[in-house]
Amino acid sequence: MPTVREATFDLFRKHGMTRMFGNPGSTELPMLKGFPDDFEYVLGLQEAAVVAMADGHAQVTGKPALVNLHTAPGLGNAVGALFNAHANHSPVVVTVGQQVRAQMTLQANLTNRNATVVPEPYVKYSYEPPRAEDVPLAIAHAIHMAMLPPRGPVMVSIPMDDWDIEIDAADFAHLIAREVGGRATADPASVTKLAERIKAAKNPIMVAGPDIDASGAWEEMIALSEDQNLGVWACPAPGGGRLGFPESHPHWRGVLPPAIGMVSPTLEGHDLIVVVGMSVFPYYPYMPGQLLPDGAELIQITSDPDEAARAPMGDAIVADVKLTLAALLDQLEGTDREPPPVWPGPARMEDSDPLNASVVHSILKEHLPEDAVVVLESPSSTLALRNQLRISKPNSYFFGCGGGLGFGLGAAVGIQIAEPDRPVVCVLGEGSVQYAVTAFWSAVAYDAPVTFLVLRNEEYAILKWFAEIEEVTGSPGLDLPALETAKIASGYGVQSTMARTAEEVGTALAEALADPKPRLVEVPIQPGMSLF
Amino acid sequence: MPTVREATFDLFRKHGMTRMFGNPGSTELPMLKGFPDDFEYVLGLQEAAVVAMADGHAQVTGKPALVNLHTAPGLGNAVGALFNAHANHSPVVVTVGQQVRAQMTLQANLTNRNATVVPEPYVKYSYEPPRAEDVPLAIAHAIHMAMLPPRGPVMVSIPMDDWDIEIDAADFAHLIAREVGGRATADPASVTKLAERIKAAKNPIMVAGPDIDASGAWEEMIALSEDQNLGVWACPAPGGGRLGFPESHPHWRGVLPPAIGMVSPTLEGHDLIVVVGMSVFPYYPYMPGQLLPDGAELIQITSDPDEAARAPMGDAIVADVKLTLAALLDQLEGTDREPPPVWPGPARMEDSDPLNASVVHSILKEHLPEDAVVVLESPSSTLALRNQLRISKPNSYFFGCGGGLGFGLGAAVGIQIAEPDRPVVCVLGEGSVQYAVTAFWSAVAYDAPVTFLVLRNEEYAILKWFAEIEEVTGSPGLDLPALETAKIASGYGVQSTMARTAEEVGTALAEALADPKPRLVEVPIQPGMSLF
Repeated sequence: MPTVREATFDLFRKHGMTRMFGNPGSTELPMLKGFPDDFEYVLGLQEAAVVAMADGHAQVTGKPALVNLHTAPGLGNAVGALFNAHANHSPVVVTVGQQVRAQMTLQANLTNRNATVVPEPYVKYSYEPPRAEDVPLAIAHAIHMAMLPPRGPVMVSIPMDDWDIEIDAADFAHLIAREVGGRATADPASVTKLAERIKAAKNPIMVAGPDIDASGAWEEMIALSEDQNLGVWACPAPGGGRLGFPESHPHWRGVLPPAIGMVSPTLEGHDLIVVVGMSVFPYYPYMPGQLLPDGAELIQITSDPDEAARAPMGDAIVADVKLTLAALLDQLEGTDREPPPVWPGPARMEDSDPLNASVVHSILKEHLPEDAVVVLESPSSTLALRNQLRISKPNSYFFGCGGGLGFGLGAAVGIQIAEPDRPVVCVLGEGSVQYAVTAFWSAVAYDAPVTFLVLRNEEYAILKWFAEIEEVTGSPGLDLPALETAKIASGYGVQSTMARTAEEVGTALAEALADPKPRLVEVPIQPGMSLF
Repeated sequence: MPTVREATFDLFRKHGMTRMFGNPGSTELPMLKGFPDDFEYVLGLQEAAVVAMADGHAQVTGKPALVNLHTAPGLGNAVGALFNAHANHSPVVVTVGQQVRAQMTLQANLTNRNATVVPEPYVKYSYEPPRAEDVPLAIAHAIHMAMLPPRGPVMVSIPMDDWDIEIDAADFAHLIAREVGGRATADPASVTKLAERIKAAKNPIMVAGPDIDASGAWEEMIALSEDQNLGVWACPAPGGGRLGFPESHPHWRGVLPPAIGMVSPTLEGHDLIVVVGMSVFPYYPYMPGQLLPDGAELIQITSDPDEAARAPMGDAIVADVKLTLAALLDQLEGTDREPPPVWPGPARMEDSDPLNASVVHSILKEHLPEDAVVVLESPSSTLALRNQLRISKPNSYFFGCGGGLGFGLGAAVGIQIAEPDRPVVCVLGEGSVQYAVTAFWSAVAYDAPVTFLVLRNEEYAILKWFAEIEEVTGSPGLDLPALETAKIASGYGVQSTMARTAEEVGTALAEALADPKPRLVEVPIQPGMSLF
């Protein structure tokens, strides 16, 4: 008869979850007892960093990532990171320790009093089994839910005295044998109708969202664009957690603006807008206007029922993005339409003192290896980076989709651990660094040779920009004086340098990329937004 | 006609909440527009630190502390700190920005989708007003709820377009005029009955919890102990967020152990146990046993209905601790009982290399000014500190009551900001530092001259101790190699030194206490627990 512990770790093995990201407390020790040799534990020093590492790991591998957190306060510290994982459709499986069952009802210290509520509303499944024997089934349920579309985080709370209880071997044999698949092609009638609409449209266009990359539909998107001569806008930056189309492709149109009042003018002249793998639309600043230009129709393909249901305009098909694009391609055979005009390539701004972030990104572009992964959390230079780098490979760009800070630093470490042979570059604003700063320690402890590029403007630049839009003056808290990122990262053991000129930045980035240890390059930049 | 903003800031003034702890995002800018000159903004770089600062501030002042956080992800990052504030009965009033109302239903980026759920189950009130005009009433409701017994955190989510809306001046005149009081003396019959039980008891004893200090009942507890010659145990450490009795008083008995199986033997021989201002009991490790010794009765006085209702044994009186103790004293007139035996004073352990934490605490005792505040988050040396310091003034000791880490560092900064003329000493384990490490930056930015004393044992010592109790071997994640706290704190601008010998520790502490800037002293210590 296997114990709950043996069964649960077998389930983890079955699903390829042999790396555990965690920050332990006393309530987790029984789970960790005799930690198996074929498992690896990645310690984070605070839960925001732990979950961010797992989020990056889950996204780059496409597999569920295992997290173990300490009861109520540990799970509580992770809620912001779970918000990010939920927005990112990231299959993060969180197990959380709980008091012994005998001490829960009297609410002994560190009882997770209402455990299933704590991670809400950011998990797809939140459960505390009523008996020890049910733990493996709850874990299996959680893993399947995390991976079923739309992917997302889940949580199981496990009393600490459950792990040595024996379970029924035959029941468990069924449990571990199960394969659960949720990818589905849209019904043929919908696909045929969409193909007809595309054929009939005079000037159709596409918008490419993050779930193209997540579903592995990169080649299908290119094929569709090329078969039909469709221009492709990138998802507005706030929702563009991954890229859906090569940004150096001649059909690429740029990044769609994120405000209602700016989308319609941008899409003016198109009669059909095909939105793939994203919400309609991830707006951010409120600028009222028409939802769509006159005469335009919109159709969205998404694996997320909520994304489909909540959109204020257009039709939607809920199905797997890759399979549905493949089915759509089967019904299309080229077009007479002219290819879209070629989007101009990036220009390099002139050097200045301090440099503009755009220049820093153009220098990064020169040094960036072909197979690099870029993780971005620099709100005021997101567009400049996208424009300068024009990243054009799948699984190579990650950004916190929901707009919460604290994803980037940890995610980069988790991605580097998952992909030790790919160079990982993490571009951060100095403010962003601080939401999960302890991930620097994990980068050092686990030899994750991330190149951290920190842009220092001594302010929350994006907020000053929003303040202008919102006509807000006199707000406190927007400046960041004396925030010495390179010194802090050095304190955590990351070799860090300050680079001020274009030459210094180039040299420092080249050295950092060549180093088998994590390195950080801090670059003072001009204040304000960098859009190009 | 006042705007929502004018009315809300007037409410804050009325309740003495003119200091705002925050980390802003775009959704908070409209609230912060034209920030009034009579208000002070304290910026934290991550929400765990922001709320911890406010928690400390609220506890030491006894007033509601105002917090402003960024919509969903910002509030999410704070949930662990709200767990601590809830456990600490700390009146932290959290306002959170929200998307404009016109973009909430389509769930534009940074919509707080289910805002009232996010801080649950750790707030007493969680609300998002359905109309802008209702914001001041919701804020007033929140402030009153935070301050009514048992005190605790509250949250109001406010759409960003609400702030400039005008409200009815006459309605607001009623709102701002309201005084709401919740302190109540237990009904006279209960008090009389308790007085009779104490008089009739042969060998009664008391246990003193954190809400004695919070309710200002310090003098009443001493008077009761002295009038009736009652020994006083301190609340078990996990629940002892504040002290309820001077620990150098001859009637002090020590800190009650936190396990069921240890409480009964400790209280053996007492026929009446009077538990004041705390739960019955804040147990932690599970050691089964009798809940009470044979023949013992227990009665609890608490202002928290849940603490009263959930206790597994004894009677309870739900009422204000100070008022009820005062009423009780009115019915007592001395006793023939002998005074309890005097609890032995602390002994200083011998120096070693590295030092034992107990020795470090005995050195701290020598240098600690009379009016110092001690904030503690060093789980493996909590008992040693309590034993060595024997803190004996009210409002002078703060500890995270719920057992979550991340309270101490931030709380110390918030307390120092509230009490600029008192020396604040914050004793932390190196692991504890990392849960809200960014509070170092706020200490520097706001000239909060906290003396941070960091004990470095390169491990989560408390977890290794629990692992022994739980017979867990082979757990990963219990060691903390290469975690250089002094270097990290230096990176944040806190002048930091390493002290290894008793002499070095004494010199460093004396210098740090004399410095009008924050200072940190890191001391390598022996591994393991320090109990005495």
